[in-house]
Amino acid sequence: MTTSTPQSAALRPEPAADAAPAAAADTGYVHGYSPTEARRLGEQADTLAALLHAGTSYPAGSRVLEVGCGVGAQTVHLLTANPGVLLTAADVSADSLARARDRVAEQLPGADVRWHCGDLHRLPFPDGSFDHLFVCFVLEHLADPAAALAALRRLLRPGGTVTVIEGDHGSAFFHPRGAAAQRVVDHLVRLQADGGGDALIGRRLYPLLTGAGFRDVAVGPRTVYADGARPALVEGFTRRTFVAMVEAVRGEAVEAGLSTAEAFDRGVAELRRAAEPNGTFHYTFFKAVAVNP
Amino acid sequence: MTTSTPQSAALRPEPAADAAPAAAADTGYVHGYSPTEARRLGEQADTLAALLHAGTSYPAGSRVLEVGCGVGAQTVHLLTANPGVLLTAADVSADSLARARDRVAEQLPGADVRWHCGDLHRLPFPDGSFDHLFVCFVLEHLADPAAALAALRRLLRPGGTVTVIEGDHGSAFFHPRGAAAQRVVDHLVRLQADGGGDALIGRRLYPLLTGAGFRDVAVGPRTVYADGARPALVEGFTRRTFVAMVEAVRGEAVEAGLSTAEAFDRGVAELRRAAEPNGTFHYTFFKAVAVNP
Repeated sequence: MTTSTPQSAALRPEPAADAAPAAAADTGYVHGYSPTEARRLGEQADTLAALLHAGTSYPAGSRVLEVGCGVGAQTVHLLTANPGVLLTAADVSADSLARARDRVAEQLPGADVRWHCGDLHRLPFPDGSFDHLFVCFVLEHLADPAAALAALRRLLRPGGTVTVIEGDHGSAFFHPRGAAAQRVVDHLVRLQADGGGDALIGRRLYPLLTGAGFRDVAVGPRTVYADGARPALVEGFTRRTFVAMVEAVRGEAVEAGLSTAEAFDRGVAELRRAAEPNGTFHYTFFKAVAVNP
Repeated sequence: MTTSTPQSAALRPEPAADAAPAAAADTGYVHGYSPTEARRLGEQADTLAALLHAGTSYPAGSRVLEVGCGVGAQTVHLLTANPGVLLTAADVSADSLARARDRVAEQLPGADVRWHCGDLHRLPFPDGSFDHLFVCFVLEHLADPAAALAALRRLLRPGGTVTVIEGDHGSAFFHPRGAAAQRVVDHLVRLQADGGGDALIGRRLYPLLTGAGFRDVAVGPRTVYADGARPALVEGFTRRTFVAMVEAVRGEAVEAGLSTAEAFDRGVAELRRAAEPNGTFHYTFFKAVAVNP
């Protein structure tokens, strides 16, 4: 518990559609690119890995593309669960890619990954290059996730699958309730929207994927519920993932005029009661799998 | 599908703590006692039975008390899954009990149930009369669910279990989003609160049960997610359970001054878009099991 400091439930960097990679690495990603953030992402991925990766199984030899791999938090889990795949991991941030490479080298020495730095809307792979795409906490940061999915579908062979995982902050509710706590969650949603993203995208995966031309779209909720009977989850998810993620946008929220610093702190304090022994916290992720016709 | 008209996700009648049974049958239960409502309750219970009853298994010979059995919607599923139990079913409404008896006689002829009409706060059974209690969609209608649980715990032998199932309307979110749709959901929550209940009680089961002196309290989310890939669930849950439940309080909401009729209808129309081919709907029930020390 003491080493667990994941912070964000909504975590993969991707720039707006037309941003150049170099510029994008410093803009448009609400959670930032600091080493602390990178560690948080890795530890959050560990906490949630069982929940989110369950059911993702690719045959050995499959050509898999992880889109928006960021610092490699999910990459490690993908490789662990699917040791025989031919993995390409792409991200728009060269810095994130370097960290991802280090993470994989450290945790899975000998793992063979092709790393690619580039914008997911214009990846230079030939049509049908991959059997499977894996896209986790990416779409929420994009101005036009429908266009992104259409561009990505081109990379998939007919019959290949895409797996998409996203959160939805509208699924966050807690005990005790509190208007100030709800407001700070709403501020986070608003800031992400102002940046061109959508922190409520989980509920939209089905229409997004069908609209992008995928078929057999199967979306399932992956619900996290934490209460006093599950202290590790309270610590790892409620406190160190969700509350910390909200806390991290304090400066931005104040700067944007959404809140005073005092009101924000009251909201976070109220939210933190959900992590006390009598508190409870609920959050639903959505995992979608769909087929390229 | 055409015969499926369940309406309410929050469904068991119980009066406020001190109401006499006869009076209680016509007051305090937001969903009403009509035959149409009774049919809806039964059909909703069928739709959700697999989700809600999974894991509830009592050894043959167990003395089980269903508290607030209402029209017997859950009773049938309890008996089907646990044919050897010695079931007592209690409800404050003699009329509901009569319907429950008819339902069980029709669907499970020969099933042996003891029926008891009385207020759950003052059931006349000796201490420790039961091995297991089953309480589904009841606490949400009570002014003091903590007191109710404490009163019920007395009926349980040491080591016996209580199972509690409740919804939480704060878990309802949908695509497309809409402020008018959210408002009608909020009206339903408000009306239930004004009546002394709590439509957001699911998130509180853990502190309620621990506070009432139970131990080994284990609460789990049971999430319903419906989209265009699951037309039966869209019809049975989104449209005929949740939207219909909201629609049913239109008169009350208008009478209470929460909404104009027109605004309410706009909200319901907006909510109904969640049941269209590109819509999605999310709802989480909570199921708790706890032990009497």
